[in-house]
Order: sequence, then C-alpha cells, then structure tokens
Amino acid sequence: MARILTITLNPALDLSVETPPLTLGEVNRTGHTLIEPAGKGINVARVLARLGHSVTVAGLLGDANPGPFERLFEAEGLEDRFVRVPGRNRINIKIAEAGGRVTDLNGPGFRAPETALQSLEDRLESLLPECDVVVIGGSLPDGFLPSGVAELVQQASEAGKPVWLDTSGEGLKAGIEAGPFAIKPNTDELAGWAGLPINDVAAVETTVARLRTHGVSHVVVSMGADGVLWSSPSGLLRSRVPPVSLVSTVGAGDTLLAGMLHGVLGGERDEAVLRYATALSAECVQHIGVGDPEAPDFPSLLQQTRVQPWPGQNNTGEIRL
Amino acid sequence: MARILTITLNPALDLSVETPPLTLGEVNRTGHTLIEPAGKGINVARVLARLGHSVTVAGLLGDANPGPFERLFEAEGLEDRFVRVPGRNRINIKIAEAGGRVTDLNGPGFRAPETALQSLEDRLESLLPECDVVVIGGSLPDGFLPSGVAELVQQASEAGKPVWLDTSGEGLKAGIEAGPFAIKPNTDELAGWAGLPINDVAAVETTVARLRTHGVSHVVVSMGADGVLWSSPSGLLRSRVPPVSLVSTVGAGDTLLAGMLHGVLGGERDEAVLRYATALSAECVQHIGVGDPEAPDFPSLLQQTRVQPWPGQNNTGEIRL
Repeated sequence: MARILTITLNPALDLSVETPPLTLGEVNRTGHTLIEPAGKGINVARVLARLGHSVTVAGLLGDANPGPFERLFEAEGLEDRFVRVPGRNRINIKIAEAGGRVTDLNGPGFRAPETALQSLEDRLESLLPECDVVVIGGSLPDGFLPSGVAELVQQASEAGKPVWLDTSGEGLKAGIEAGPFAIKPNTDELAGWAGLPINDVAAVETTVARLRTHGVSHVVVSMGADGVLWSSPSGLLRSRVPPVSLVSTVGAGDTLLAGMLHGVLGGERDEAVLRYATALSAECVQHIGVGDPEAPDFPSLLQQTRVQPWPGQNNTGEIRL
Repeated sequence: MARILTITLNPALDLSVETPPLTLGEVNRTGHTLIEPAGKGINVARVLARLGHSVTVAGLLGDANPGPFERLFEAEGLEDRFVRVPGRNRINIKIAEAGGRVTDLNGPGFRAPETALQSLEDRLESLLPECDVVVIGGSLPDGFLPSGVAELVQQASEAGKPVWLDTSGEGLKAGIEAGPFAIKPNTDELAGWAGLPINDVAAVETTVARLRTHGVSHVVVSMGADGVLWSSPSGLLRSRVPPVSLVSTVGAGDTLLAGMLHGVLGGERDEAVLRYATALSAECVQHIGVGDPEAPDFPSLLQQTRVQPWPGQNNTGEIRL
C-alpha cells in the first residue's frame, strides 16, 4: 500500500439536510441532518484510508472550529499535519427536499494569512520525503493566490512526487502551468480551461494535446451520468456508469479520484482501474458521504460498469450517451 | 455567588445563518454562519456562569455528536455531569434572510432510552446536595414522558432545592403538578396551560391563583416587546423593554430566567431584579447568542428599562402596550 499526502486549502463543514418540501418563513420539521467535515483533499483521503493506504492530510485549517475535523482524522486514521490559520472553516448547508430540489447555502470561511503559502511550503518540505504521491484538491480560500497552487505543484514535482490536482477556475489554470501528473476536471471545468465546449472526441483530443504540452500525463474527466473519460499516455478510455438511485453527488468526484489513484498505484490494468473507480463513484451517489468499497452492492456495481476505448466501434465520439 | 444545577433534557446544535434573500433550488452565498450548542438549561447556565456563579450542567446528551457541547462546557467553565445516551443531538437551523424572513429547519434528535429517567435520578441524587437551586429547561426528547419532568421537580423539591421550570406543553403541565418554585412561560405557553387567553390583568390573576394552589410561588411571563410580568408572593410587577434593534430572539427567554435567578439569589429588591433581567434579555436580542452583562450598552439598556406595579396608575391592565 502507498503513502499518500493530500492537501486541502479550504476545508468545509458540510451540513446535509433531508426534508419534506420547505416553507420559507415557517418552522419546518426536517428529516435526517448530518454535519460532516469535508473538502476535496479530506474526502479523497478518507476513501484512500479505507482502501488500506497510509494517508497524511495537510493544508489550511481554521483554528476557530477545528474540532469536527480533528475527530474525523482520528476516527479514520488520517495523520493530521494541517497548518492552523486564524478564523473559521466555512459551513456549507445542502438542503435536499423530497421531490428532488436541492438548495445550497454556502457560508464564508477564513481568510488565508499572507504567511499561508510559506507555512505550507515549510510543512511540505518535511512531508514530501515521506510520501509516494500528492493530491491537491478543492477551492482556494480568500487571500490565497492561484499562483500558490502552481508553487505547491512545482515543489512536489521537483521532489519527484507525482501530483494529482483537482481544483477549478484560476487555481486549475495556474496549477496546470506547473505540470501536475494528473488532473480530474468535470466537463465544465475542462471546458472553462480550454475555452471551448467539451462535447465530442475532437474537443477532448485537442484539449488533451494542449494539456500534454504543459506536462499533464493523465486527464480524468468526470461527466456525471455520462460516465468518465480517461486520457493517459496509453490512449483514451471511457466508462459507463450502471443505473443507480441518486441520493447525493457530493463526494462522487473525490471518490473517483481516490479510486483512480488506488488502481494506478496498485499497478492494475487501465480498464480495471477505470472500472473500479467509476463503480466506487457510482456507489457514492447512492448515499450521503464518500464511496464505500465495503458496500454490499459494490461487487454488483463493479460488474455492471462498462469500460471501452473511446471512440470505439459502438460509440460515436459524442459525450452525451 | 450561588451553586446552580441546570438540567437540559433535549440539547440542540443551533446553526444560525444570515443571508441575502434565498433562491430555493440554487447555490446561495450566505453571510455569517455560526454553529452553537444550545438548549434552555445550557443557555441559562452560560449566562449564570458569566455572572460569576458556579454552575453544573446535567440532563441527557447524545453520544454521537457531543464534541461541540463538551468544548463549550470547558470554555465556559461549566461542570459537565450530563448522562450520555445513544444517538445524535438534534440540529436546528435558523435561516435569517435580509428583509426579516426567518425559516427554521428543526431536525430529529436521539430517542431517550427507557433507562433515561432512572439514570437522571441517580445522577441528581449525587448532585442535589451540592447545589442551591435547580433549573429544568427545554423540550423533551422522544421517548421521555412528561411525568418524568414531574418526578425530577419532585426529587429536587424534596431535597429542599427550589426548582425553576422552563418548558412547555405536556412537560409544563406535568411539571406544574409537582409544584416547582418558579416557572417562566411566555404568554402563549401560559395561555395553553390555563386554557384561556392571557390578555389582561384579570386573566393573569386568575391563572396565577390557580398556579399557587399547585405550590408555584413565582411566575415570570415573557411577553416579547410587551415586556415581562412577574407575579411573586409580594405582588405583580411589570417591566417595559427599551427600544432595541432586533437581530435574534433566540436565547432571550433563557437570559431573562438567568437574570431573574441571579437577582433573586443575590437578595436584590424586586424592582431591581426585574429591571436587570429584562435589560439583559433586551441586550440578548441585539445579537446572536445569550445576553452579555459585559456588553458596552448594557448600562444604558438598564437605565432605560422601566418597572412598575401592575396594573398601576398609568397602565390599564391590558397586556398589549
């Protein structure tokens, strides 16, 4: 099993509420309500720890409400090397009404102090020699420049550690310049970076070729119900997800990334890597929380997940199925 | 300073969100978001501890998410003697939109196990000798019978400790039968118990007379912007609150109760007791959280709070001002 370092720059407390249809301005009795520490790097770390890897979590953590995070790290066996910064970690509320309407209330979080990047670089200095691979995930807090992402990617790469980068917007743009080993955008994020709609094989191939000039070897594109594309030096693969009953897509992308990393580190065949990661991500959307490789129906989801070269004999090169 | 024991049977994690007007089904960027452990007994305890009393907190606490409570108890110097029960403490979300609309999302909490009452009685057995007064506050969790409130009131009363009871509905009804020293209903809660509208001095006097036959010596009626009524063996007093800019009424009743108890235990004159408690409760509604006796404008609020016998020369006996 591998030693993995994940970096989360803007952790969040995720609060999920399931409720009958809401009436604004009234007292509503809700169903299941759950508070869970989150953030892409932390979510990825949880899945990888469950898969048996030795995982260290780092990044920036607000010192005003670190408790739920610290308890999670302890419970899940994650080594906590977060840099503490003044302020609160943001709270994101997701209200899922019966009937399917989902409302997000995303709160403000801490502002990264000017010293944040330097503190992170110092922390990485001691952590990088101890790990095999680095995951950098999630959004950037106020006060943290996109160029900081590039600096972290560069520092890890120079230490000889492959970086898997999962962020968006300016952070993704700056990070790509520093040549991470792999990125995992969704279709919109990739289209935002490429400046063109990602809706067929030609657009994907053009974009992947541009990414390769920056040194990006692997591009994993999560496309929701349309499956997953994986461009690697060996070619282009596409997975199709089995039908599942959707409860929450939160954590599905993080589960996908963790599953890919697990397979790649384990030296699995490419088809097997993508099948496993896609099925685990499908398992994730059936409930609140990250994907669970121990779920009773996971073997059946795995069996129903199809992986083929793309575009192949029976597929047209269109993204939409 | 006194030694006070507060009992909270159904603690809650209160999450307050301030936000621009919401759009359901969308991602909304909210303002200030705060998670705070709450429950009437806990809120009362916080105010009393700030006023210099030695406070022990007890009741039932879900063992699945006790962390925020335990950290609060430690930070505020409250002695934690809660009985742990299996399950989660409920999460209540209060969304305050700019413009004044307030939406509550109240989640489910733990179910009290059958042994809960006995465990509490055993716990009280050891705590009662060490305290001067007992506060029982808040709602009842599923599985906890209203008669349990009466048993707790009786146990404390038999140990010679005055009980201040602040609950509603069936719990209030059952509790009153056991003759608590004081109750602190709002107008609606009192009307619910009395079975008649509480809108003038005649209704208050009839109700207070009935309460006295049960052994209730003090009735503190919180009436929001209409002030506070206090019926004691010395007569009937009414306070009028100064004009304040209202942010949140959460915790105002608990602050009022704590202020009354502080004054009564300190042997203050009745008018001074009611003036202090009313002003502290007015301080509370100006912000999120319980009343703060150290707030810079508290002296001015205190000076603006009026207390008179009721009905008096210049007031008519109507509740509405």
